[in-house]
Amino acid sequence: MRKFVNDPKQFAPEMLKGIALANPAELRYVPEYNLIMRADAPSDRKVSIVQGSGSGHEPAHVMLVGKGMLDAACPGDVFSAPPVDYVYETTKLMKSEKGVLHLVNNYTGDRLAFEMAREMAEADGIRVETLIIDDDVAVKDSNYTVGRRGVAGNFFVMKAVGAAAESGADLEALVALGKRVNSVTRTMGIALSSCTPPAKGSPLFQMAEGEMEVGIGIHGEPGRRRVKQGTANEVVSLLLEAVVTDLPFGSGDRVALMINGLGGTPIGELYLLYGIAHQRLAAQGIQVARSYVGEYCTSLEMAGASLTLVKLDDELMNLLLAPAVIPYRVF
Amino acid sequence: MRKFVNDPKQFAPEMLKGIALANPAELRYVPEYNLIMRADAPSDRKVSIVQGSGSGHEPAHVMLVGKGMLDAACPGDVFSAPPVDYVYETTKLMKSEKGVLHLVNNYTGDRLAFEMAREMAEADGIRVETLIIDDDVAVKDSNYTVGRRGVAGNFFVMKAVGAAAESGADLEALVALGKRVNSVTRTMGIALSSCTPPAKGSPLFQMAEGEMEVGIGIHGEPGRRRVKQGTANEVVSLLLEAVVTDLPFGSGDRVALMINGLGGTPIGELYLLYGIAHQRLAAQGIQVARSYVGEYCTSLEMAGASLTLVKLDDELMNLLLAPAVIPYRVF
Repeated sequence: MRKFVNDPKQFAPEMLKGIALANPAELRYVPEYNLIMRADAPSDRKVSIVQGSGSGHEPAHVMLVGKGMLDAACPGDVFSAPPVDYVYETTKLMKSEKGVLHLVNNYTGDRLAFEMAREMAEADGIRVETLIIDDDVAVKDSNYTVGRRGVAGNFFVMKAVGAAAESGADLEALVALGKRVNSVTRTMGIALSSCTPPAKGSPLFQMAEGEMEVGIGIHGEPGRRRVKQGTANEVVSLLLEAVVTDLPFGSGDRVALMINGLGGTPIGELYLLYGIAHQRLAAQGIQVARSYVGEYCTSLEMAGASLTLVKLDDELMNLLLAPAVIPYRVF
Repeated sequence: MRKFVNDPKQFAPEMLKGIALANPAELRYVPEYNLIMRADAPSDRKVSIVQGSGSGHEPAHVMLVGKGMLDAACPGDVFSAPPVDYVYETTKLMKSEKGVLHLVNNYTGDRLAFEMAREMAEADGIRVETLIIDDDVAVKDSNYTVGRRGVAGNFFVMKAVGAAAESGADLEALVALGKRVNSVTRTMGIALSSCTPPAKGSPLFQMAEGEMEVGIGIHGEPGRRRVKQGTANEVVSLLLEAVVTDLPFGSGDRVALMINGLGGTPIGELYLLYGIAHQRLAAQGIQVARSYVGEYCTSLEMAGASLTLVKLDDELMNLLLAPAVIPYRVF
């Protein structure tokens, strides 16, 4: 496999150590629980925001820990839910008077780990609420999921509740806000290649050159169909058709548009897709008021992209524009 | 090829259009010259900073245009120098009382285009100075280059002169600053795969799985040697050995450390490399005071990474920390 790795089983811990070393003033790494946390968390003046998931989706979620976003992230191994006790210990470490908010993408393994950890933490007297994210319109039920999957649109939930928590919102308000953001967020992805988990050492699934998987999951779960690879214009048509009609979005709406790379697709191609999508939306009377182009939720080095739309209002726009200080930055 | 593209010959213009659409308030796209420019440039109160190169290295340089970095970038087609008249027209558009600074990575084609454009602009009465960047320690002379190549370390020159120009530094001071940054910046890269230029439609060169090219160029130019793929630890050893001994960097130095992805390597692997390099440097008494992990100068979807060290002083640190507003951002 064409990867920079030592012992493939140590991929996640070695990555986490690197993240902490790159941000010594802002972050702490607790190897016992695969935990990346803000050095200044928890604080009784704010709700602690915690997310966990499998590794391999970076920057989600370990590179999004910091002031204005997550207080802690506890990843599992590549494409594996975090162990219950990691989530439990993380929740205990993040205990705050104002409570702890668990953000969970809708996968059965993740939900189970967070549910059990929540029960254990509540037995310790910690207030915990849970927010499930399920922005992927591709399929209802899938490998590893009952209902819709949580994918790149998760970013908007993290950003909004992270900003609101920073300005002192209480746990109930954050749950309501997060549900509202999730309810106006829709995503679908297309893959042009498979990817290789380090410990597996071979591709997760087979995909011939010239094919594409429409509605791909971020762990290689099948989407809606496997078809002949289309042009960029055709790809955008497929993604927009699925996403726009689902909410639905319509003329007069103001939106955030995200083109998310799945890991192996260069950012130049993402901007090319962005330009097409932006113009198509404008032609439908949908105004793109905020753009996000880059990698937000990946599948290792998978070639592919997803498109997310978020229906904006003034409150949400302000939360998206609020500052944040996270490892995933340019300078 | 596993790419999102319409007509492969239109890859660069379609990407540039997307960049401009995503940043309507900040940027303008001039299709006649492949030009991405700040909407508020030029200004007679500051030196205009211009860089151009082949496309396919994004975010360099078109996604680094904005307040605090470049005033304009005029790319050529993928891996091709910009045409002379594009550079000339860009220089004319960026004309300022304080002059225009051309940043040029050291490739024969780019140098030629910028040299001729400078002569044409000077004949029009525009003051132009040129800064050549050549941070790559891998080889002296190469395909397309006499002397050393300019690669990811270019970022630090852009960031420093961009910040200084913003605070009113004059042309001579910027040339001196840029030369100084270039003189304390060293880079080397390693590739694990080739990449496919859209208009070519097939890999630029052949690289079997299990091999790596030590000292790769960003257009696939050969490096120092082709060897059996090593572990992440071995990769960092090779890169640090080449980079540290070249300046040389030594105990007591304060440095910026950049691990740059070449396009197809996930950011998780880049942090893994970062962690190893950071610890090795610390063991040598070299303090990493600023970290850069991500994609800064890519080769389309090539799997690989480069390591850059910059010897810091207080002035340079402040210039690196100065704000900038560019398309290449997270939120």
